Amino acid sequence: MYPFPQDGPVADPGLRHRRAHTEVVIRDAAGDPMASAEVTVRHVGHEFGFGASAFEFIPLATGALEGDDRELYERVSDLWLEVFNAGTLPFYWGQFEAERGRTATEALTATARWLRDRGVTLKGHPLVWHTLTAPWLDELTVPEVEAAQRERIRREVAEFAGLIDTWDAINEVVIMPHFDKYPNGITRLSRELGRIETVRLAFDEARSANPNATLLINDFDLGFGYDALLEGLLAAGVEIDAVGLQTHMHQGYRGEEETLEIIDRFARYGLPIHFTETTLVSGHLMPEHIVDLNDYVVDSWPSTPDGEERQADELTRHVRTLFSHPSVKSFTYWNAWDRDSWLGAPSGIIHADGTPKPAFEALRRLVTEEWHTPEQTLRTDDQGRIRVEGWRGRYEATAAGRTTQFTLAP
Amino acid sequence: MYPFPQDGPVADPGLRHRRAHTEVVIRDAAGDPMASAEVTVRHVGHEFGFGASAFEFIPLATGALEGDDRELYERVSDLWLEVFNAGTLPFYWGQFEAERGRTATEALTATARWLRDRGVTLKGHPLVWHTLTAPWLDELTVPEVEAAQRERIRREVAEFAGLIDTWDAINEVVIMPHFDKYPNGITRLSRELGRIETVRLAFDEARSANPNATLLINDFDLGFGYDALLEGLLAAGVEIDAVGLQTHMHQGYRGEEETLEIIDRFARYGLPIHFTETTLVSGHLMPEHIVDLNDYVVDSWPSTPDGEERQADELTRHVRTLFSHPSVKSFTYWNAWDRDSWLGAPSGIIHADGTPKPAFEALRRLVTEEWHTPEQTLRTDDQGRIRVEGWRGRYEATAAGRTTQFTLAP
Repeated sequence: MYPFPQDGPVADPGLRHRRAHTEVVIRDAAGDPMASAEVTVRHVGHEFGFGASAFEFIPLATGALEGDDRELYERVSDLWLEVFNAGTLPFYWGQFEAERGRTATEALTATARWLRDRGVTLKGHPLVWHTLTAPWLDELTVPEVEAAQRERIRREVAEFAGLIDTWDAINEVVIMPHFDKYPNGITRLSRELGRIETVRLAFDEARSANPNATLLINDFDLGFGYDALLEGLLAAGVEIDAVGLQTHMHQGYRGEEETLEIIDRFARYGLPIHFTETTLVSGHLMPEHIVDLNDYVVDSWPSTPDGEERQADELTRHVRTLFSHPSVKSFTYWNAWDRDSWLGAPSGIIHADGTPKPAFEALRRLVTEEWHTPEQTLRTDDQGRIRVEGWRGRYEATAAGRTTQFTLAP
Repeated sequence: MYPFPQDGPVADPGLRHRRAHTEVVIRDAAGDPMASAEVTVRHVGHEFGFGASAFEFIPLATGALEGDDRELYERVSDLWLEVFNAGTLPFYWGQFEAERGRTATEALTATARWLRDRGVTLKGHPLVWHTLTAPWLDELTVPEVEAAQRERIRREVAEFAGLIDTWDAINEVVIMPHFDKYPNGITRLSRELGRIETVRLAFDEARSANPNATLLINDFDLGFGYDALLEGLLAAGVEIDAVGLQTHMHQGYRGEEETLEIIDRFARYGLPIHFTETTLVSGHLMPEHIVDLNDYVVDSWPSTPDGEERQADELTRHVRTLFSHPSVKSFTYWNAWDRDSWLGAPSGIIHADGTPKPAFEALRRLVTEEWHTPEQTLRTDDQGRIRVEGWRGRYEATAAGRTTQFTLAP
């Protein structure tokens, strides 16, 4: 009768929701518990998604680089992999299938494999969006756009199943039917279908192609329109796996209070929250009067020493805020490297030349030190058991040269 | 399959949608057509709702005034009735039933009758709202609040049926679950029920008490949140009779372009649109940085000659804009008289001393001259018929001392 709680989960700066403990039985080659054995336990992966857009891996993974360029990309990827365990790959329809029928499946598959082989969990972004959509939709009627959109979702989700099992099923639906910067097929479709049926279309097709996929709705508009839309979607029975919140903060850090207020507002729906696109610049801030960030075009947007200190401080505070709230399952930084960054902004935590900024060091400290369970040597009891307590995630226990994997989870 | 048209009805400055023609047969006392008879045709009422808040009639209608005060109120009511054919009466729960069980039914009934007897169509405002709600709800649990809210809706709507057949069933739902200025029972209810079920509750109860009522959803937030909510409500099968759009323009006139953009956005849903609360001040504008208009508190907010000219110009332009769009069925000015005006603003079109401002004259010119069909004398044909063409509304035809009523409608 009352589907939404007065209040959802709340932030806990003590981070108890990020920790767990378990008992592991260490066995020998014959499968018998090893009593009183020395065991080394290592924390090898986080449950929380520390992610970034991973577009920059395409040239590297597809072998398009040579010489110094290749060496630079490899250095950047080494840094990237040190702090991130999740990556978002681009499936913008207008780029993925600029010409109808010729898709970038091969390059994206190579890149997804390259990242998967290095332990990175992947998300495809996005399956439905009015921006960067296929230009050839302009020539189609609404029923033809719908058919093409449905087919494209099934095709990509099925093709990448097992490699990419998380998708931004639909992007920026709050504005979608009213987007008026240029005519496009998806805005036309969403105007006639309505937002709810457009979202349902995205989720239904993606779900049918990969029943195991985690499917997100994602938006930059974090106002009441988004949560009113969510209520409509829940009432209409659309099964949303997670709510994506963008936070491109080119115009300034939102601060802890506002961020928690936003999280609390969405947490009430009981769905996991992903911070899907987080940006903090290490140079001057974009002027406040800009409404569509794409309208800000500058010749040069330099990273500055002061800006880099501010970025490091704000990134630390922001990630701490997200990590403190039990409903938040991941954050994705957008983008890690200044080379080819969105809007030419100094949004990277790695300079264009491949050297880390203070924000990289700050994130590294959180991910690999503060929230990393130190390696420890334990001794099994007389039944071969050890008790492990630490940050949630994947672990390895090594005894007498044999390694067992286990997870610390709720 | 595609429930919403790409575009809804559009504005027609030619106003063809406001005009109609018909044939009327003039009959004598015996019921026989009067051939070749002289007939005087008078336009006695508009189809379009030219309305205003009508709170100021309560003291007059309930006989609470004496002497000069009474005379002043009567002069103001004469002016009011000259330009307005629709009035909104206050049913704020916290005032209507400040103490549980003691309602203002008697005073409101007297006022509604007084206005109805003078040809004014009435709306009750609002049945559900978090602001000015009953303070005694604070002591109740959510299920108790729900029961009290349902009962109060049925009680008022049934009691006033026939006298008041239009209701703002629910007010400001976009912000309702997140309203945080002070705790209140309705915000608590809407948080747990969700916006859609809260709206359904309001409409279901009002409909059950008066199946003939016109029921509105009303909001000040005209952003994408409101139309996203509407999509959710339509998907959930809530039967909304009309969409109410507030336009308190204390911070400046929105202009024709923005107003039409808003109307077009909501017109796509195929529902009638009511401009429920239109304000234009005749003094300085409220500063732009104020977000909640209630936060602007000033000792004095004078009406100025320049401000009065601006107000007259803007009111004319605004009413012309609304009248030009076929989806708009009414507008309600908020409030007509500077005495006791909301926020102490010089928002009236009648000064506190009862003299009209230029905006009154401007509105009078539109309603009683430009959009008024002039009285005409016609002659019936050999079958007793006259053909009448004019602005939609109620008409009277008088021949040989007998008067017939008819309407010009689509």
